[in-house]
Amino acid sequence: MYDLLNTISSPADLKNLSTGQLEQLCSEIREYIISCCAHNPGHLGSSLGAVEIAVALHKVFDAPQDKIIWDVGHQAYAHKIITGRREEFMHNREKGGLSGFPKRGESPYDSFGTGHASTSISAAHGMAVADSLQDINASHIAVIGDGAMSGGLAFEGLNNAGVSKSNLLVILNDNRISIDVPTDAMHRHLMRITSGVRYNRIKSNIWRRLGAGKLRNFLQDLTRSTKKFLLHNSETVSMFDALGFRYFGPVNGNDLKQVLSILKRLKNIDGPKILHLVTVKGYGYTPAEENPEVWHAPGMFDPETGEPNPAKGGPERYQKVFGETITELAAFDGRIVGVTPAMLRGSSLDIMKAVFPDRVFDVGIAEGHAVTFSAGLAAAGMLPVCNIYSSFMQRAYDNLVHDVAMQDLKVIFCLDRAGLVGEDGATHQGAFDMAAFRSIPNMAIASPLNELELRNMLFSATQQDYPSTIIRYPRGSGEGVTWRSVPFEKVPLGKAVLLNEGGKVAILSVGPIGNGCARVVAEAKKRLGADLLHYDMRFVKPIDTEAIDDACRKASVILTAEDGAAIGGLHGAVSEYVSENHPGIKVVAVGIPDRFIDQATVKQQYEECEMGWENILQKVTEIFGN
Amino acid sequence: MYDLLNTISSPADLKNLSTGQLEQLCSEIREYIISCCAHNPGHLGSSLGAVEIAVALHKVFDAPQDKIIWDVGHQAYAHKIITGRREEFMHNREKGGLSGFPKRGESPYDSFGTGHASTSISAAHGMAVADSLQDINASHIAVIGDGAMSGGLAFEGLNNAGVSKSNLLVILNDNRISIDVPTDAMHRHLMRITSGVRYNRIKSNIWRRLGAGKLRNFLQDLTRSTKKFLLHNSETVSMFDALGFRYFGPVNGNDLKQVLSILKRLKNIDGPKILHLVTVKGYGYTPAEENPEVWHAPGMFDPETGEPNPAKGGPERYQKVFGETITELAAFDGRIVGVTPAMLRGSSLDIMKAVFPDRVFDVGIAEGHAVTFSAGLAAAGMLPVCNIYSSFMQRAYDNLVHDVAMQDLKVIFCLDRAGLVGEDGATHQGAFDMAAFRSIPNMAIASPLNELELRNMLFSATQQDYPSTIIRYPRGSGEGVTWRSVPFEKVPLGKAVLLNEGGKVAILSVGPIGNGCARVVAEAKKRLGADLLHYDMRFVKPIDTEAIDDACRKASVILTAEDGAAIGGLHGAVSEYVSENHPGIKVVAVGIPDRFIDQATVKQQYEECEMGWENILQKVTEIFGN
Repeated sequence: MYDLLNTISSPADLKNLSTGQLEQLCSEIREYIISCCAHNPGHLGSSLGAVEIAVALHKVFDAPQDKIIWDVGHQAYAHKIITGRREEFMHNREKGGLSGFPKRGESPYDSFGTGHASTSISAAHGMAVADSLQDINASHIAVIGDGAMSGGLAFEGLNNAGVSKSNLLVILNDNRISIDVPTDAMHRHLMRITSGVRYNRIKSNIWRRLGAGKLRNFLQDLTRSTKKFLLHNSETVSMFDALGFRYFGPVNGNDLKQVLSILKRLKNIDGPKILHLVTVKGYGYTPAEENPEVWHAPGMFDPETGEPNPAKGGPERYQKVFGETITELAAFDGRIVGVTPAMLRGSSLDIMKAVFPDRVFDVGIAEGHAVTFSAGLAAAGMLPVCNIYSSFMQRAYDNLVHDVAMQDLKVIFCLDRAGLVGEDGATHQGAFDMAAFRSIPNMAIASPLNELELRNMLFSATQQDYPSTIIRYPRGSGEGVTWRSVPFEKVPLGKAVLLNEGGKVAILSVGPIGNGCARVVAEAKKRLGADLLHYDMRFVKPIDTEAIDDACRKASVILTAEDGAAIGGLHGAVSEYVSENHPGIKVVAVGIPDRFIDQATVKQQYEECEMGWENILQKVTEIFGN
Repeated sequence: MYDLLNTISSPADLKNLSTGQLEQLCSEIREYIISCCAHNPGHLGSSLGAVEIAVALHKVFDAPQDKIIWDVGHQAYAHKIITGRREEFMHNREKGGLSGFPKRGESPYDSFGTGHASTSISAAHGMAVADSLQDINASHIAVIGDGAMSGGLAFEGLNNAGVSKSNLLVILNDNRISIDVPTDAMHRHLMRITSGVRYNRIKSNIWRRLGAGKLRNFLQDLTRSTKKFLLHNSETVSMFDALGFRYFGPVNGNDLKQVLSILKRLKNIDGPKILHLVTVKGYGYTPAEENPEVWHAPGMFDPETGEPNPAKGGPERYQKVFGETITELAAFDGRIVGVTPAMLRGSSLDIMKAVFPDRVFDVGIAEGHAVTFSAGLAAAGMLPVCNIYSSFMQRAYDNLVHDVAMQDLKVIFCLDRAGLVGEDGATHQGAFDMAAFRSIPNMAIASPLNELELRNMLFSATQQDYPSTIIRYPRGSGEGVTWRSVPFEKVPLGKAVLLNEGGKVAILSVGPIGNGCARVVAEAKKRLGADLLHYDMRFVKPIDTEAIDDACRKASVILTAEDGAAIGGLHGAVSEYVSENHPGIKVVAVGIPDRFIDQATVKQQYEECEMGWENILQKVTEIFGN
């Protein structure tokens, strides 16, 4: 089944294969990816679309001497499979297995780790400059999707590299060309390049002169004359040309022959170049081609039929609570608008978009802009609800400080995927938000215990007496608490909720980890006969000092529990207050330790970080033992 | 002398003035700015270049109904002066006076606060969308310099607004056209527009047909025909066109008539537009025109002669220590390269650039790229020293996490202007670095007590056993300690230095505020007869727990002192450790409180934040009193 693939243990094994064999290899890789992802979910669509790019790059260039950087890294499965990780790929995104993204520690072929969008050009340019300073002769290739290309960092990279003499090759892997309505100007620009009069005229001239059957021969002729083959269209491709990159394309990026041919030629052309490859997301797998959004990361499925494996059932996800609640609130408050950087479905803002199409804005992969744009909306009287995954919010730190908080403008930030996120691993952990944002004035930071608290926090944040508020909640399912259509109830700003009365040890938790703590409280009662004091703090800022005062009166040890970096977050807030106001009380932290946490299930990561209820119970037991 | 200017108390007073009178007004404004800045330093050059833009905008548009956003805000002095703040402008950048930047709280005409670069398009687009949702008919204008236009956020704003129907007008205030070697591709693009064959052909055609004397009449004719007047040059201006903005220009932005004329016409053209105005930095003041870099923010000077007032003398600035030391180190270590986002002079990396021109990279206003580019350099074997002002480093938070720390790549970050910065005020305070970055794994964070410690920290950070290290130091002069040519000495990683042996109260300080603390120690001995324990912590991370242990043994109260946000910084680090390991010891914070600190002198800001030595001494005295 994988006759050729099984012979490939490094890119060196590609070098002597014929084009026909390489085409066969692409098919096998595709089958292998589909088969692995069917039972071990991953980012299927992008990787299927980029198989030819990976094979062609490793055929034409000599990694790891030549450096290939896969922007975001969703699309790098074929790259991983042909660079010695075929077997390991069966354990993609598992604890101890492969990272779902390129990772320096994993392989010398992963020359630069990725996960967040738009970094590849800056990194590749840096590596190109470094090699040039060290007289190392190597090619530097950034493979970047059209989505990531719309991020400001990619522009900064192009803009800087465009005046250099770096032999940088940027491969624009354009797989959204088929979407009808572009959400940003660069996409419209790309659409015009591929659908514009000139390009179509060139294309149809070719076809008229040849007839479809002779295309192969014609292309072979053309490749002898680089200039003619490289469709350098000065009118339409000007954005990249203006930035100092020689533009080549568009070329069908799923046609291995074409890709091989142009790469061979580009290898010998000096200076910054951009190659525009048009690929089909999910290429070669009909269900994925037909429904690329769903098949971006489809979960488990039957590879034969393309049927998704039946959903697990269980409580609805937090994002759904957000999406439905914000839609409800928007119906009552015309000031409410939704903003998302390219996560309409991922944030569930699509629910609001369906009802209020003019009041939801998908601004593309551009987190900084999303926040400053929200600040502009707020300055002119709207109440923006800006939904960004926690780890991506790191990209808008200054916008939060400079454009929102400093002007005391009111924006509600909903940080989805806060805390440990599981299989996406280190790059996507929402670990730092509370710690990083707690020192910013004029901001409240909250995290709900469950679905109902999220619902009520959203409602409360829209009220007059709330400042700009960050509401962080985790990836995945809620706790199963009834929330839909429950009448809204105000969450008092900065007030904790007493969940259990007790003493000796006080647990101060924030967010859904509080449910694990409640279990600890129950078990401690059962096993130790002890009643622990337990507050759901709800807010990291403003912190409820009365709750802490109460804890310090009743307990000698406070245990802070949070699904975030223990350094600086709730633990920091409580420690700062206690050490000044209640010297004598000991504060112990439960939270993400001071290291990056790799891919695993969320449950495994909780255990690794000693944040599971069993871990916490053990800590409590030890305290009682002393 | 200011006959016309004295009659202007709001933009309404411009409406009935003739063009000739407005030209006169521009001259008076210019004289007034020069006269005020001569004895009260400010950002002179940019504001002189933008006088006509400000006057023309307020003549043609109706602020505050129409919203004008001044990107960065350096150039907004004329805007401030004609919007009711003429008298107050004499107290520009002073405590209780005007902010040096647009500020919402200061005037309804400041529709959006600025200070950091590249925010204006996103904000203006947000306001345009908000007004459109509320059926408010208004114009939205972002005035952005060519430097700020190279930031990724500006691209994100253009890219998003370019597909909207917003009547957004972006005025590109291009005043670096005269610089010979563009440092980025967009600047080269702008240069080509203004110096390219087509534009010059048009220009010379005009001149040939008219002779210079008749230009005025000709332009008046032309303005009757919008199409002809608006030089819409499809070949060269394609970057903006590609992004969905109709490009108009280039036009001489210091020619009031031209600017008025084109603005009147653009007011009635729908959709996103960009107007390219070429201005001269320092326009109308010969010394500033001739030496725009020096006159960007010249300090005090004699307005008649343009002679700078004699320098105060005193110790050299910290940035100079950085610049000279890094140059010295680079001579011994070929891996060392310097990276700066458009602060070659401001960081003193120009010193290294002069000696090692190929090893210093000014990447333009693009902090995110600067950090990821540095990560790329490090991944390929170099040792980048990336110098960024502390408050601008906020723009690269994710790059620090995702591209440097997560991959454990070694980059040395030198954060100049850390802590309170004085007259630049809230937007430029380097308050948050320690608090925000302390939770990031694999990073050391240090701050030197004085010049010599900075020198030795730089040396030490280049050594093998140091991870990526942030070295933060303040704006302005050092302490007067001898440092030049002093033999390098290793600073042990994460180790504090005992500055005074003592007890009861322990001061743990980090950075130059430790010099104030040393004075407190001396005064406490004199006045209270008490020896305070004093450690220069040197590092916020790794924190020296042995020093804290020692403090907890000898003292009952620890006072942490830092020139940064007290929430989360050194105070957080010490509190977290003490509350877990030494319950019973009280920790009290000296640091920037939880609010934004406005413009004033650094000394005034220290007093306002109770960080001056007198304030600290008083805290100590109170502790002894209890």
